[in-house]
Amino acid sequence: MSILVVGSVALDSIRTPFGEVEDILGGSATHFSVAASFFNRVRLVAVVGEDFPPEHIDFLASRNIDLGGLKRVPGKTFRWKGYYEFDLNDAHTVDTQLNVFEDFDPDIPEEYRDSEYVFLANIHPALQLKVLEQMRSPRLVVCDTMNFWIESQRQALLETIARVDYLLLNDAEARQLADEPNLVAAGRKLLTMGPRRVIIKKGEHGVIMLGKGVFFSLPAYPLETVFDPTGAGDSFGGGFLGSLSRYPAMSDEEVRRSIVYGSVVASYNVESFSCDRLRDLTAEEIEDRYREFTAITCF
Amino acid sequence: MSILVVGSVALDSIRTPFGEVEDILGGSATHFSVAASFFNRVRLVAVVGEDFPPEHIDFLASRNIDLGGLKRVPGKTFRWKGYYEFDLNDAHTVDTQLNVFEDFDPDIPEEYRDSEYVFLANIHPALQLKVLEQMRSPRLVVCDTMNFWIESQRQALLETIARVDYLLLNDAEARQLADEPNLVAAGRKLLTMGPRRVIIKKGEHGVIMLGKGVFFSLPAYPLETVFDPTGAGDSFGGGFLGSLSRYPAMSDEEVRRSIVYGSVVASYNVESFSCDRLRDLTAEEIEDRYREFTAITCF
Repeated sequence: MSILVVGSVALDSIRTPFGEVEDILGGSATHFSVAASFFNRVRLVAVVGEDFPPEHIDFLASRNIDLGGLKRVPGKTFRWKGYYEFDLNDAHTVDTQLNVFEDFDPDIPEEYRDSEYVFLANIHPALQLKVLEQMRSPRLVVCDTMNFWIESQRQALLETIARVDYLLLNDAEARQLADEPNLVAAGRKLLTMGPRRVIIKKGEHGVIMLGKGVFFSLPAYPLETVFDPTGAGDSFGGGFLGSLSRYPAMSDEEVRRSIVYGSVVASYNVESFSCDRLRDLTAEEIEDRYREFTAITCF
Repeated sequence: MSILVVGSVALDSIRTPFGEVEDILGGSATHFSVAASFFNRVRLVAVVGEDFPPEHIDFLASRNIDLGGLKRVPGKTFRWKGYYEFDLNDAHTVDTQLNVFEDFDPDIPEEYRDSEYVFLANIHPALQLKVLEQMRSPRLVVCDTMNFWIESQRQALLETIARVDYLLLNDAEARQLADEPNLVAAGRKLLTMGPRRVIIKKGEHGVIMLGKGVFFSLPAYPLETVFDPTGAGDSFGGGFLGSLSRYPAMSDEEVRRSIVYGSVVASYNVESFSCDRLRDLTAEEIEDRYREFTAITCF
């Protein structure tokens, strides 16, 4: 039951209404891996530069994460700088330095190609497709994306999502990709583009999942303080796919439960900068909040 | 088990992406009454002008609605003209003609003053308070409001909500009244202002309910087409209070169930202009959609 993730490992500089930090551990593959590692072993494929702090490597290695696919190459690590206003819904990018990520061309290690669960984090859709072509016969492929690719690489993105099982994106991206303002109609339209299921993340409003004859809606965990929303979507993906990888039958009920686990881990992740809250998060805390989700939604 | 509502009965002219209509039956008390009448008898207190079409009176009288408190006075009926863009979340007002509503001074008929359930629809908060002062000992008072009163009559509004059991408002209004961007924190702050419970309507994102040690979150029914959102909040209020009036114990579970019934009726109400969809809505359809709410939220 191995999970492969291909995406970014980055150094983030972030300002929120609650604080400001420089060059902290970030990146889509980072947030995914740490979140998924609570449920299953993760194989991480990404690239960092020579300046990547060894303590971050040590931290990732201390989790249930296989770093055999994390390349260290000459140059500087991918850096993102941004801030959030009080509503915390939109990330405002101040600066993006791709650095070594600019030439990232994921070569999946031979021993990773049998991975059963694949998470294509938010990278160029042509690279996502290239990853897929290297895999033997994954049981489930989940694909994330972002507005930048929807605008600039629409055709490549459509080719990629036609070949994945689950498409994961946020509400604005779903509306944009489907060219449809109603979110439910947008989700239905995205289903016609190939994926078996579409999961739409709505931030403070929770998440919806659509499939053929299937609809599931889960509210967000009611946090009074979202400290830093960076990585919420990727940690949701990690919690979701990590949980689902423990249910080989992947029944509708198991998919729903995994969406709750994804939401649980994401709700913890946004309580601190980076994935700091996940460093000391316990399995018991995860189960506690899962039960709280039941309590706040049952009727 | 009588329900009293005080609010507006109006003639609306509305444009949505799906159509345009003139002088159709509208108003907060109208939408509330028709929705609540599926569950219990409603006593309606409002005012209309001489131009109010008799067929609307006939329609309201044909429901489980007592019109003894609906005054017909010289002058024209309250008119609202507005439109919605594609996102359907914000009503844009083009014109408001208060007409006979300008001098509306609710005098509660003697035989209504023993009403057990009171819905103070969206009118001047000083008038809401005046209604309250005329009531004998209602079991439950629910108060709605809007941004206009929050901005222009804040002090009067605070006096009113200090004396009600449930405060019902939408997400933007909750943030504005609490002066707090995080919705959960806003809800908690509103609780300190007096009401035992706060219900925040989030449109396409559903509804949350907060109380002391209580939190409930229900997603919206997944409609692909919201034809006209006018009256969604009031029909939610009607379905909610109508349902709750059938559960005298008002346990937490019964309150939650009533929130689902409110959401069910509101989801039907937005499928047509005015309350047209409710004209032929059946009890069976209400139960069907209640079961669908269970199916889309359970995990």
